[in-house]
Amino acid sequence: LGPLLFESAPGVGRHEVIIECPEHLANPARLSDEQLRDVFLAYRDRLVALADEPGLRYAAVFKNVGAEAGASLGHCHSQIVATPIIPDNIQAELDGAKHHHDRHGRCIFCDIVASELADGARVVARSPGFVALVPAAARFAYELWVLPTHHASRYETLTPADAAELAGLMKRVVRALDAVLRDPAYNWFLHAAPLRSPDLPHYHWHFELMPRTSRPAGFEWGTGCFINAVPAETAAAELRAATM
Amino acid sequence: LGPLLFESAPGVGRHEVIIECPEHLANPARLSDEQLRDVFLAYRDRLVALADEPGLRYAAVFKNVGAEAGASLGHCHSQIVATPIIPDNIQAELDGAKHHHDRHGRCIFCDIVASELADGARVVARSPGFVALVPAAARFAYELWVLPTHHASRYETLTPADAAELAGLMKRVVRALDAVLRDPAYNWFLHAAPLRSPDLPHYHWHFELMPRTSRPAGFEWGTGCFINAVPAETAAAELRAATM
Repeated sequence: LGPLLFESAPGVGRHEVIIECPEHLANPARLSDEQLRDVFLAYRDRLVALADEPGLRYAAVFKNVGAEAGASLGHCHSQIVATPIIPDNIQAELDGAKHHHDRHGRCIFCDIVASELADGARVVARSPGFVALVPAAARFAYELWVLPTHHASRYETLTPADAAELAGLMKRVVRALDAVLRDPAYNWFLHAAPLRSPDLPHYHWHFELMPRTSRPAGFEWGTGCFINAVPAETAAAELRAATM
Repeated sequence: LGPLLFESAPGVGRHEVIIECPEHLANPARLSDEQLRDVFLAYRDRLVALADEPGLRYAAVFKNVGAEAGASLGHCHSQIVATPIIPDNIQAELDGAKHHHDRHGRCIFCDIVASELADGARVVARSPGFVALVPAAARFAYELWVLPTHHASRYETLTPADAAELAGLMKRVVRALDAVLRDPAYNWFLHAAPLRSPDLPHYHWHFELMPRTSRPAGFEWGTGCFINAVPAETAAAELRAATM
């Protein structure tokens, strides 16, 4: 049955937990600016280190906040799961971005950033080098993406100054989520180029934040389609107001 | 932005709720054999009826049991959401099955049924025409598939006798789930050929049952990979014992 159904990959990987503060804080919005900056730098440092491990192809970097979002620990932490495969969702995103670049000669995320900044209706907050927005076809109500405004495919190029700026913007964003949704459970997930990638003209690293305002049910699990009853513009307007 | 990012489909569809019993029962395991048979026949009748509606391409038939599985009503019910697209997950399954048939000249689900019945370790229960098994690479702990043992791509070919037999097997399965996992929340989802399909040599209708024993978190949502700590053989052995 094995060779008939499965393509095999070697059974290797890494699972790391990043403990984000010595004191017991459960809400990342309460981390200091320096602590959150160091979290973003730790992600970078671990991606660099994991690239040296033979057999690993991708490192999934993510955070679970709240039991409803799957967190089994209260204390602020992030996790890294490195795998010998490029996960399906990431490969599909890479393929889609490549397809757009082949057709239009541009990075689709750069196109989204430019279009959203020009339009403004789905922008939640920005800093000189980053923008937080509600994607036009968000799967989850109040879903947010945080992207560098300039093209960058490899998260490993993040500088300490970038990390400090990203931390400042991310704190505004999670505080807005806490205010609008009353301390929701959520996940964030880093979308970045695979380990040991060269600079990719078609890809653009970013974070996706997924608040858990409803539970995916049979329809979502069966079809892969998502029901989101909050228009992106409405969610963005509420979150934008809460960042001010 | 629209034409750049989205392929559009007409905004049409149907959402139907099948109320499965006049008395207030919340657990489908307590439906009578006749009631559950009629549920499976109602699915068939609605697929036949929806095929006549212009613009609809797929009808997702599913059941949510328990709040943790997304149910917002207690009273036993199923839902049908018909869409003008073939959902991604279904299309991927159709494509994968077609690929297997092109390479091997056989239906992959027929191959799975034959292989699993010969091996036995992942089989939970069977009847003359149906089998319930734990798939070898289950996403969810105690996930179950229920398939006809003979090839059938279109659920619309289900006869009243088939429906009665299916109901009997499904009741044994959900009672085993209730016994082993103590009345878990779960979804079931019908995987069937799209509306107005001819008989497909490569596809094979089946139900997938997904108990909610843990909450998918950042890793699952980000990667599309699933962590399942219960080996299929262990889950099948526990469920099999509970059906006896």
